[in-house]
Amino acid sequence: MYRSHTCGELRETHINNTVTLSGWVQKSRDKGFMIWIDLRDRYGITQLIFDEERTASELMEKAKALGREFVIKVKGTVIERASKNPNIPTGNIEILVSELEILNESLTPPFTIEDKTDGGDDIRMKYRYLDIRRNPVRENLIFRHKVTMAVRNYLSEKEFVEVETPYLIKSTPEGARDFVVPSRMNEGQFYALPQSPQTFKQLLMVGGMDKYFQIVKCFRDEDLRADRQPEFTQIDCEMAFVEQEDILNTFEGLTRYIIKEIKGVEIGEFPRMTYDEAMQRYGNDKPDIRFGMEFGELNEVAKHKEFKVFNNAELVVGIAVPSGNSYSRKEIDKLIDWIKRPQVGALGMVYVRCNEDGSYKSSVDKFYDQEDLAKWAEITGAKAGDLICVLSGDTLKVRTQLSALRMELAERLGLRKNDEFAPLWVVDFPLLEWDEDTSRYHAMHHPFTSPKPEQIELLKTKPGEVKANAYDIVLNGNEIGGGSIRIHDKETQAMMFDYLGFTPEEAKAQFGFLMDAFEYGAPPHGGIAFGLDRLVAILGGQETIRDFIAFPKNNSGRDVMIDAPAAIDEAQLKELNLKLDLKA
Amino acid sequence: MYRSHTCGELRETHINNTVTLSGWVQKSRDKGFMIWIDLRDRYGITQLIFDEERTASELMEKAKALGREFVIKVKGTVIERASKNPNIPTGNIEILVSELEILNESLTPPFTIEDKTDGGDDIRMKYRYLDIRRNPVRENLIFRHKVTMAVRNYLSEKEFVEVETPYLIKSTPEGARDFVVPSRMNEGQFYALPQSPQTFKQLLMVGGMDKYFQIVKCFRDEDLRADRQPEFTQIDCEMAFVEQEDILNTFEGLTRYIIKEIKGVEIGEFPRMTYDEAMQRYGNDKPDIRFGMEFGELNEVAKHKEFKVFNNAELVVGIAVPSGNSYSRKEIDKLIDWIKRPQVGALGMVYVRCNEDGSYKSSVDKFYDQEDLAKWAEITGAKAGDLICVLSGDTLKVRTQLSALRMELAERLGLRKNDEFAPLWVVDFPLLEWDEDTSRYHAMHHPFTSPKPEQIELLKTKPGEVKANAYDIVLNGNEIGGGSIRIHDKETQAMMFDYLGFTPEEAKAQFGFLMDAFEYGAPPHGGIAFGLDRLVAILGGQETIRDFIAFPKNNSGRDVMIDAPAAIDEAQLKELNLKLDLKA
Repeated sequence: MYRSHTCGELRETHINNTVTLSGWVQKSRDKGFMIWIDLRDRYGITQLIFDEERTASELMEKAKALGREFVIKVKGTVIERASKNPNIPTGNIEILVSELEILNESLTPPFTIEDKTDGGDDIRMKYRYLDIRRNPVRENLIFRHKVTMAVRNYLSEKEFVEVETPYLIKSTPEGARDFVVPSRMNEGQFYALPQSPQTFKQLLMVGGMDKYFQIVKCFRDEDLRADRQPEFTQIDCEMAFVEQEDILNTFEGLTRYIIKEIKGVEIGEFPRMTYDEAMQRYGNDKPDIRFGMEFGELNEVAKHKEFKVFNNAELVVGIAVPSGNSYSRKEIDKLIDWIKRPQVGALGMVYVRCNEDGSYKSSVDKFYDQEDLAKWAEITGAKAGDLICVLSGDTLKVRTQLSALRMELAERLGLRKNDEFAPLWVVDFPLLEWDEDTSRYHAMHHPFTSPKPEQIELLKTKPGEVKANAYDIVLNGNEIGGGSIRIHDKETQAMMFDYLGFTPEEAKAQFGFLMDAFEYGAPPHGGIAFGLDRLVAILGGQETIRDFIAFPKNNSGRDVMIDAPAAIDEAQLKELNLKLDLKA
Repeated sequence: MYRSHTCGELRETHINNTVTLSGWVQKSRDKGFMIWIDLRDRYGITQLIFDEERTASELMEKAKALGREFVIKVKGTVIERASKNPNIPTGNIEILVSELEILNESLTPPFTIEDKTDGGDDIRMKYRYLDIRRNPVRENLIFRHKVTMAVRNYLSEKEFVEVETPYLIKSTPEGARDFVVPSRMNEGQFYALPQSPQTFKQLLMVGGMDKYFQIVKCFRDEDLRADRQPEFTQIDCEMAFVEQEDILNTFEGLTRYIIKEIKGVEIGEFPRMTYDEAMQRYGNDKPDIRFGMEFGELNEVAKHKEFKVFNNAELVVGIAVPSGNSYSRKEIDKLIDWIKRPQVGALGMVYVRCNEDGSYKSSVDKFYDQEDLAKWAEITGAKAGDLICVLSGDTLKVRTQLSALRMELAERLGLRKNDEFAPLWVVDFPLLEWDEDTSRYHAMHHPFTSPKPEQIELLKTKPGEVKANAYDIVLNGNEIGGGSIRIHDKETQAMMFDYLGFTPEEAKAQFGFLMDAFEYGAPPHGGIAFGLDRLVAILGGQETIRDFIAFPKNNSGRDVMIDAPAAIDEAQLKELNLKLDLKA
């Protein structure tokens, strides 16, 4: 037996008990006549004590030789601690050790196993198994487990059935790039790893499963932007005989339950906002509504003077920065530099200081008088002491730029609070989006999303204006989930494939099974998928999903710990009927 | 709104309520003046009624036109049924329909959507989404969900943490064949899909996670024997600071809990049997102990006469078939034919009839007298009316043959009862097994399994006799799980790799990260993995795992529904730096 108790368990009630503990040597303090050792396991830290008077001398010697991260087993008596440590639950006791066994030695770890470590990202990833010993990393993984358990219990309770869908499926050129898997038994053929179980969950609805969910790995072979992983986890859900309203209510319930269960925070009814409204008010389809700073559109009160920049712009739009009038000229210049960076790409910024005396001082006083500026203040909601920041240009671009500025300022002002949760629904997404590269429309969500029935006719004349029965759930400025009511009849699906540039043959080759399924009594259905990695990170009050993944990959898709991917044997390639075809 | 209630929900208490139901037309009986329709969804069947007196004539016409598997929505009033159907929960009521909407039509399904269908395996797999509409298939999937929820709740409760390990890992030539995934971003390199998360779960133990589990897909590119899938699901578990006893107790608890929770059956302490004992008593390392028919070894009482077949055999061994004396000569001959089939491969069988009067009649009366045969009866436990079947030959082969006979007879005698559960532990597996093909030892479990510490020296002289800290959990004649205490120090691991024929360079290239991890304070640890597909099938009282998988593959590894694997684009291959190298 390695332990009678864990290192987080013993209290004053255990005093005089003989106990056995196992764990890692967190640290050791050697005063010569007395040695204290902090023994650590997943559950906590317990102090061990060895002293000249009460400890055999060989045991003292053995204890002296223990290094950091040695794995030991000790037997001893729980005693009251002379100087108590109120910071840890076991702080009132310590163990007077009578037996010590070294279970495994340890080299000096390449970084300190402390909450704040001296290890950089790269070294921590290479030795991820040591990184996981650190409280924050381990706690993140336990936190993730709690979230998934809450999800499963809630959905199970609501009669959802978790069904495992296959990982070895078929490649489809639509959407992101697939990872493929050569089949040895089917010469020259490949499986693909799923980008999502989309078609399978729809087939489960055709199959009458009624309510499906799955917490499932998905795969995308994309060039990895910051904080994307080639394999990621979805909470994938689908329901039959539902309208959009049913889906929103069900998964609002789930989200509310998780936040309550995991964070102890009660959330009321989630606001709902159309995509158009979100773009207009926040310049963003995933607005952070924990704080205000809503957009004020100024076209009507800014285009009547001789200021060409505004007059030539499609949109003039501003936000009020709370207490921003305190910024120095230099600080404002820096802000302007910030929004001119290529990542944001604004050409410039107009600003208005809202003085405490009610007067305004702007960078465009040449063109606008106090009355004009007062209107700007009214529209942006600026109060005395605020700063109004105004951008102008093409609608879509300028909204994106001002949204970036809004988020940056909120961050600097401490308005994006980790412990505050402001979810909302964004609904009525456009069905299609224009792709400049290929000069055609792409499905904004995916090709199975149903257009608003009353707008199907509009597809022929103004496809870009057609809205979909598609929705996102947004939390603190991040899309945590998205879904749609699906097409469930063959004609509409065929029409959609046609709009998306599939020939009937291509549609049949790739999605024939789904089109066939729609001929055998497919029920109306819809669903949603949550990005678990992101959801957990946000609930954990952090932004980096990598911190919530046990063994993440780096930006080149490599696992630096196991050193994968790697070359494989020639024989293995031969069996798969493949040859490498390397670039020079 | 598509429904106010499901099709399994309405009772007499709902009479006179106006309700809305949606579902599939299961069947329709048209008497001209009256039409009854069985409306089906996941939750049950509700009878709809249309009749000349109470139903508008257009509605009657519409109802007449409904075909099987049409998806409809109806509004109507719950009324008491004239002739009640006690076989279904909704059998006391029916719905007098006032509104009918066809949500989707259906072609005539290629097989009947009934518990007993007329569809063969192939057609059901091609239209799996229709097959899933059938109660038995759907119930199997719901059953699987219940089992996984029970597992997760039990383990979570015991402080196990479900941690997701990566799917894109590194290929290792040891063991079965890997599926590989070419990396586009790392030219000429490949990921592999995990055959199990073995090394990752061990690294989690090194990382101090203490108790880990995961219900996870695993992949093996093997030539598929009957009822194997290229992707399968494991309940994968690992614990730190444990001895074998701790693991057995923990997962005996889990298994007991599942059987109680899912089947309502209480199981006492699980028997434990060494591998050697299981082989001796049942000729099998996964004995079905729901029934007796234990092996009786007869060497001492069968090799003293002139019967050369026995005298030349390494082992003479028999079983008593309850009431087998009732078999006719012809039936016994058939049995002998059965065991001589190449799949079993015995050369012949000696039998002894145990007559009701206490006398014996055997096929070797020429050599053995009544006294001899009485000893055989005593050793095999045969009673009057039984038949003793005796095989002889090489120990390992003859045990396997007699085990096959034992199972076959038990099946025929109805002794393998679906609703009876007899789990046991088989322990002390050999560490290594000799492989004739490669003329070397292979790890019986895997190369991370720890030898019995007291037998490490024996490795040098008689490696085949060394036992491992390895165990299987067996249920009703199937291995449902297996595991071991792992090696946790670099020296033993290096030694094992050496015994298994790895050069130090190969060991480092493939498992260097694990060997490195062992240098930084790896705790003692061990674990187990359950085969979920098999476990669920056995708990469900069935043998075929395919029936418990939503979208299984066939014996060529194909998904015939989506038609995967399939050819991929030339462009996709090029991006992956690959060329097909097809055989002529």
